[in-house]
Amino acid sequence: MSSLQQPFQAPGASSSARAVRLAARNGRLQSHTSGLAAAHVQANLVILPQRHAADFLRYCQANPKPCPVLGVSEPGDPSMPALGHDIDLRSDLPRYRVWRDGELADEPTDVAALWREDLVSFVIGCSFTFEHGLLAEGIALRHVAQGRNVAMYRTSIQTVPAGPFRGPLVVSMRPLRAADAIRAVQISSRFPAVHGAPVHLGDPALIGIRAIGAPDDGDAVDVMPDELPVFWACGVTPQAALAQARLPFAITHAPGAMLVTDLLHHHLACF
Amino acid sequence: MSSLQQPFQAPGASSSARAVRLAARNGRLQSHTSGLAAAHVQANLVILPQRHAADFLRYCQANPKPCPVLGVSEPGDPSMPALGHDIDLRSDLPRYRVWRDGELADEPTDVAALWREDLVSFVIGCSFTFEHGLLAEGIALRHVAQGRNVAMYRTSIQTVPAGPFRGPLVVSMRPLRAADAIRAVQISSRFPAVHGAPVHLGDPALIGIRAIGAPDDGDAVDVMPDELPVFWACGVTPQAALAQARLPFAITHAPGAMLVTDLLHHHLACF
Repeated sequence: MSSLQQPFQAPGASSSARAVRLAARNGRLQSHTSGLAAAHVQANLVILPQRHAADFLRYCQANPKPCPVLGVSEPGDPSMPALGHDIDLRSDLPRYRVWRDGELADEPTDVAALWREDLVSFVIGCSFTFEHGLLAEGIALRHVAQGRNVAMYRTSIQTVPAGPFRGPLVVSMRPLRAADAIRAVQISSRFPAVHGAPVHLGDPALIGIRAIGAPDDGDAVDVMPDELPVFWACGVTPQAALAQARLPFAITHAPGAMLVTDLLHHHLACF
Repeated sequence: MSSLQQPFQAPGASSSARAVRLAARNGRLQSHTSGLAAAHVQANLVILPQRHAADFLRYCQANPKPCPVLGVSEPGDPSMPALGHDIDLRSDLPRYRVWRDGELADEPTDVAALWREDLVSFVIGCSFTFEHGLLAEGIALRHVAQGRNVAMYRTSIQTVPAGPFRGPLVVSMRPLRAADAIRAVQISSRFPAVHGAPVHLGDPALIGIRAIGAPDDGDAVDVMPDELPVFWACGVTPQAALAQARLPFAITHAPGAMLVTDLLHHHLACF
């Protein structure tokens, strides 16, 4: 066994979460994690100096729908055993973003060289898990069917500020017929750790969205005459709060290059 | 004790369910049960000859959202011990409707004189319980605040027929802002035995309702510009199916004169 080379295998939907992390760690996987290890929970990553960590955690606690915290590390510790065996947060995501004074400074595939003993890591739930729940119950999602990113919008709803962290609630939108929207409320309510129930449905103007066809991020999708736009709190919210706080130093995952955890989606169902 | 007369007390919100039933039984209560024994589940009543009972039960089973069956009696048995101590379905509702060949024939306060050994009683959940849940969680209901009956509409959705029973789904409508509508889906989902989650929200035309301001039954309420109409399956659906079946003989409760059961609302919560 020890003399045999493991043949190269690109990670796929049925890969283990750890296989995806190892592919990222050894540089074989440098792009997005969408569709990989499909049974597993993927998550957003925010890494901050300890002096800002308490404020950021307060911000998340005060805004649980956009900022559902799945894990917080000890200062300086790049592992997170509760979310996966042998996780190394410095290398196990395919790509990172490094922020200096609120500006994007670099997009490396590894942040070991930047590691410091005062860094605290936050793992935050993402919508892939509730989308998995919706799809598993037969609710088609247009952006998934069309291979697009989900449409995201800044709203007129302000998050509760904490320290330097503040800003608008950002939402993602999925168009659904009413019966599917009702079912989607039920299904996503079971997953509070990944944004939970929608925050709004129906008239976009009521939450300050002027043009449903022109999202602030992601790709536009059509809303058909027999559909309602359904809006969920989005993990871009804490990223936006982080950006506007203009911290001297921070690290996040790069868009779509998520932490793949050992958790299975159903582990996050609250009932 | 036995020589003392119990002083007359009209039943109120804090009365026991049994006190309300006894007031109906002895003729002191002949009108509606709204607001009486407020902690207790109230229910619709349908009484049919045994030869139609199997079809009616199949109809309810195939249409559980409008026809949630809380109890079915043995033929000829006017008690229903699972729903309350010492219930006598022949006398414990304030007022009944007697139907002959599909036509309303009488509205007596007691049906003991009409009782037959082949009569089967169906007790069917009603919306008071989920409304109680909504109000208890701070969701205001306009028709309650205005002291009106809830607005009801026939829809273009057909129920699943069984034997002679068929007809359109009838819905009740409550206008809610989107956040309350989402919360109302969550709360009412916990109560499948009293119509459960809404069947529709948003555009009334999609379920064949032409004029939201002109309900087919009950009272119109305004839908404000920042609100959605939210539609629940309604217990009038089985009554309408019963009426159009034009059975030679049937008995129902009179509108608003419900069976007050010993169940507390929370007994019907499925989680």
